[in-house]
Amino acid sequence: MKRAIVVGSSGYAGRELCALLESHPELELSHAMSARDQDDPEWVPTNGQTALQPGQFGAADVVFLCTPHGKSANLARQALDAGCAVVDLSADLRLNDAEDYAQIYGLPHPAPELLPQATYGLTEHARFALPHTRLVANPGCYPTSILLPLLPLLQANLLEPSAAVVADSKSGVSGAGKAPSAATHFGNVHDNFRAYNVGTHRHAPEIEQQAGIGNLVFVAHLLPCLRGILSTLYLTPRAGHSLQDSAEQFQACLQDAYGEEPFVRVLEQGTPALRDVVHTNRCHMAVHAAGPVVVITSALDNLLKGAAGQALQNANLMLGLEETLGLPAGPSMAAATGVTA
Amino acid sequence: MKRAIVVGSSGYAGRELCALLESHPELELSHAMSARDQDDPEWVPTNGQTALQPGQFGAADVVFLCTPHGKSANLARQALDAGCAVVDLSADLRLNDAEDYAQIYGLPHPAPELLPQATYGLTEHARFALPHTRLVANPGCYPTSILLPLLPLLQANLLEPSAAVVADSKSGVSGAGKAPSAATHFGNVHDNFRAYNVGTHRHAPEIEQQAGIGNLVFVAHLLPCLRGILSTLYLTPRAGHSLQDSAEQFQACLQDAYGEEPFVRVLEQGTPALRDVVHTNRCHMAVHAAGPVVVITSALDNLLKGAAGQALQNANLMLGLEETLGLPAGPSMAAATGVTA
Amino acid sequence: MKRAIVVGSSGYAGRELCALLESHPELELSHAMSARDQDDPEWVPTNGQTALQPGQFGAADVVFLCTPHGKSANLARQALDAGCAVVDLSADLRLNDAEDYAQIYGLPHPAPELLPQATYGLTEHARFALPHTRLVANPGCYPTSILLPLLPLLQANLLEPSAAVVADSKSGVSGAGKAPSAATHFGNVHDNFRAYNVGTHRHAPEIEQQAGIGNLVFVAHLLPCLRGILSTLYLTPRAGHSLQDSAEQFQACLQDAYGEEPFVRVLEQGTPALRDVVHTNRCHMAVHAAGPVVVITSALDNLLKGAAGQALQNANLMLGLEETLGLPAGPSMAAATGVTA
Amino acid sequence: MKRAIVVGSSGYAGRELCALLESHPELELSHAMSARDQDDPEWVPTNGQTALQPGQFGAADVVFLCTPHGKSANLARQALDAGCAVVDLSADLRLNDAEDYAQIYGLPHPAPELLPQATYGLTEHARFALPHTRLVANPGCYPTSILLPLLPLLQANLLEPSAAVVADSKSGVSGAGKAPSAATHFGNVHDNFRAYNVGTHRHAPEIEQQAGIGNLVFVAHLLPCLRGILSTLYLTPRAGHSLQDSAEQFQACLQDAYGEEPFVRVLEQGTPALRDVVHTNRCHMAVHAAGPVVVITSALDNLLKGAAGQALQNANLMLGLEETLGLPAGPSMAAATGVTA
Repeated sequence: MKRAIVVGSSGYAGRELCALLESHPELELSHAMSARDQDDPEWVPTNGQTALQPGQFGAADVVFLCTPHGKSANLARQALDAGCAVVDLSADLRLNDAEDYAQIYGLPHPAPELLPQATYGLTEHARFALPHTRLVANPGCYPTSILLPLLPLLQANLLEPSAAVVADSKSGVSGAGKAPSAATHFGNVHDNFRAYNVGTHRHAPEIEQQAGIGNLVFVAHLLPCLRGILSTLYLTPRAGHSLQDSAEQFQACLQDAYGEEPFVRVLEQGTPALRDVVHTNRCHMAVHAAGPVVVITSALDNLLKGAAGQALQNANLMLGLEETLGLPAGPSMAAATGVTA
Repeated sequence: MKRAIVVGSSGYAGRELCALLESHPELELSHAMSARDQDDPEWVPTNGQTALQPGQFGAADVVFLCTPHGKSANLARQALDAGCAVVDLSADLRLNDAEDYAQIYGLPHPAPELLPQATYGLTEHARFALPHTRLVANPGCYPTSILLPLLPLLQANLLEPSAAVVADSKSGVSGAGKAPSAATHFGNVHDNFRAYNVGTHRHAPEIEQQAGIGNLVFVAHLLPCLRGILSTLYLTPRAGHSLQDSAEQFQACLQDAYGEEPFVRVLEQGTPALRDVVHTNRCHMAVHAAGPVVVITSALDNLLKGAAGQALQNANLMLGLEETLGLPAGPSMAAATGVTA
Repeated sequence: MKRAIVVGSSGYAGRELCALLESHPELELSHAMSARDQDDPEWVPTNGQTALQPGQFGAADVVFLCTPHGKSANLARQALDAGCAVVDLSADLRLNDAEDYAQIYGLPHPAPELLPQATYGLTEHARFALPHTRLVANPGCYPTSILLPLLPLLQANLLEPSAAVVADSKSGVSGAGKAPSAATHFGNVHDNFRAYNVGTHRHAPEIEQQAGIGNLVFVAHLLPCLRGILSTLYLTPRAGHSLQDSAEQFQACLQDAYGEEPFVRVLEQGTPALRDVVHTNRCHMAVHAAGPVVVITSALDNLLKGAAGQALQNANLMLGLEETLGLPAGPSMAAATGVTA
Repeated sequence: MKRAIVVGSSGYAGRELCALLESHPELELSHAMSARDQDDPEWVPTNGQTALQPGQFGAADVVFLCTPHGKSANLARQALDAGCAVVDLSADLRLNDAEDYAQIYGLPHPAPELLPQATYGLTEHARFALPHTRLVANPGCYPTSILLPLLPLLQANLLEPSAAVVADSKSGVSGAGKAPSAATHFGNVHDNFRAYNVGTHRHAPEIEQQAGIGNLVFVAHLLPCLRGILSTLYLTPRAGHSLQDSAEQFQACLQDAYGEEPFVRVLEQGTPALRDVVHTNRCHMAVHAAGPVVVITSALDNLLKGAAGQALQNANLMLGLEETLGLPAGPSMAAATGVTA
């Protein structure tokens, strides 16, 4: 039985990770700990264990950092020094360039020396690097939902480079975290819907860097539900094919990329629905010809494939375990509602 | 006191219209009637009046048809023959061409001779025609949310004609009507979100015809709430301007178009939210520079500005009444939630 | 046109009241003001007027206090001194006894000298006192939903005095106010339901005092919606009647009490539903025989008949206006959903 | 590996059961089948197996009947004849008396000869009978939530026999099944709440029979969410104790009864919340002194402990397996929301 520590265990992603570890057959939660408040160095155990301090990480095989950006990188260094594998769920290690980080996140990068050794853990596209890395930058929730359909199409050179890549994304409220605020007050979320951070969302540079593009248009919206992200991509195929041919080519490309994947499904009919993916580690996607472009919709659970689930998927591979262990593949809720995938 | 008849008064739009008429100071609901079922010619009164048959419309100043497409056009003819003004909320009279209708709606047009005399009632763009028409084709809910921001920009020649016009729209469930079905079952809507009819939605040709464009990409999604539509438009400005300049130009153009309008607001900051427009006849919109395009979001209540509210706004103008009579301009709900418009 | 001031205009009840006044034909909102924070004496105008301080209330006919308990009573005194009629929506003036207040609310009563002159404004039971009072203690939301069915039955001596009066109440979240907290975070309300303050809720003594009983059992629950209260009462009829006879007697008693009321409906079939009363000033109730007791369910909008609506209803009577002015009697939402009242 | 058949696998409970069996380590789903429609004898496989007819049940160790009342009993007879253990989730075998059934369900009992051999499967109170029975009548969802707190108190003789037992229950919509209807239409559930079947609900006689009481008052309400039941019980202690002493005695009694149970928790502080029990097989309860009575609230997931979960718990015991196998004990959702159990 290998051992895991979850730091930042009282937030949405941290608690989700603790819950996943409860039923993991080969990785157990040895310590879960949470800062009393963000500026307080004192760590509080949340799973009944004795308190542990960052210097004492040594007994764990892997440390999951569910801590805020700006706080994670230093904890990552301490955990690496103690000999642990590290999965950082914050944004601290996602961008290659410390100066980009400083500009986007508004603070100097806390540990630029770690950037070269961090692997960006979009699992399906990092599977061969993961067994050889000690440090994973776990992708953002929006980027995961957008990069999974986008990367194979870019790699196959199917997109018109001069055209914008438009990603219209919609997320449940858990993405905003558990801190009470006007934005998370029930009265401002329920029966409501709106775009936010239009043109300025911090996930846009992360996506552009990983995709190697510079023409992304990304708009995030807040759904009146707790979990799930659905992204609708508007993609222009390279000239020279009919639109219908392009859609079929896109479909074949994604099917090639993900046909054998345990957690990614390219639908042959219908459209991805949040109900079919929440409470699972899956991402569903579908391809449609629509007017002059190809439309792709993709859906995942922002707390699982978009955060804690993908973190565990990455840790399994880092630790030499079976990739799917401890990860929910099929939702009782979708089954119960009669929605077929 | 002028008199109105509502045919199809038991559906969402019909009931909303009846409710509006209750507090209209100069137009009263004389008869509300509903077909016992869609294929039953018998009409049932729903507001305690004696039953009225289509041949007896004569006593009314205006007849609102909240009946399904395929049924409305014949009722319109009967009402016109009886001397009434008519607002048809169905799709029967929205397209100029009966053959387009036959292809899109899958049945021969029931009254092609009416098409030339129907005015497309996007009120803010039909205001001068409305006093002189007897027959209004009331716009669809999605088209209203998209055409309101789009038309002034097209008229001012601000958009790049070769680029696609992308409209990513999200609607509450009332748009699907009150008939029980798997699609409207609580278990399939609540905590769910998905795209539907991608590339095949019937509102796309309506929008293209009214905008005079052929390169619309329209994707509709179903929100887990009852009322409201939010559309996110991705628009490419004509070459020769910086993006920031274009966004400012778009903002100025929309402000020029709607600055004096009672029901359209071009926000100077923030983004439109459903909460600010549901239960009102308003449409809110905002302009943003975002990557290589200009993004516009627009929000309205699909049952009011997207259906019954706009129908009454049109009827007011047809009957020579003050345009705003009987129409809610400000929502108690938005006020109560502390969301400012 | 008479003039109103709303103090505490940024909370749920205050904003609702401002919205109601927008369409009131004989009472206009002259000033709306809100404290910058609860402990800050500075008042900020919220409707574009110049700032007003409590000492300048004189120009208004009525002052509505939507301020917290502990803060309201002093403002009431200032407004009375300035010659205004006052409706206090807080709990400050609801209990007859300052010592009860001190014990229940945990602070000394801020203005015990006002208690004797305050009229408890459950409108249907205070209608004849209201024209002669200058100071109304507006009832709590739960008490309104419980006292409306209870008082006529007690007055007609239909209840067994030795039996407990059980009131199981369920409220939307707006009752908890607009301040962000863990309790109002979307993630803790949506898809959730629970009882709270069991046996200790502050509204229980208010109900017992107004009903003149000492055997109330009151349990409040939090519904995953924004507006509305539904109370289910379990009442034991006096011995000597069959249960069915008792239910009919209860029905007749309530019908006698409220048959002519503009805002109270005693249903003859079906059960009250939140959808039929939210966004209206109505209270719906129904009577059922059920096992050894009579069950009464009652429903209202906690922000209207449970707060701002009843406050305006009271003010109308205090100012000699028509009782129903400015108050929504029928909901567009209920109409639109096909739910009949 | 033992084998299970699920009949009626397309409804909410059936699909939930299939989902549970996917991760059961010692019981596998061999066949899942669903009637094409309720009156059609043809069975359709739903898990990719070849079609199976009721006469071919022999290969299974246990048959779960998720079929409607009136249809289940005959299927139970066929499965018993084929040598299978049977868990019937319908109401067919819950009442001891065929004439009560005929009166309550409005049809002659389809298999009265089975009633004597059926064990009422409230697991915690049937644990010793379950290994020796071949036929389980799985309890209703409301009865499970009410009987779990009630039975130990009755057995310990703590309740005043002459006083009514009041159970005010609130359920998510999945209890109404997946069939589209006005009652399950999103527009009639969302933002709504109401009581239904007051005094006539079919679960009341089931509860009274199992509890051996005749003075139950049961009122069911419909919550605007999909899963979960919360019941609030109002119980009168026997005379001779103070109320506070009684509450402590009730707490001790329930703690004695359930302290060692894997799926029942008697809370020491706070109140049960749906969020803490949905997606688990748990029932949470808490005891409170409140006015002249003791209030108990209990919460469970109507599709798990109230249906499919308890059915599997029962089957585990019938088949000699570990009781907790395949059953979710802790919810990722509750963990993620920071609600502690």
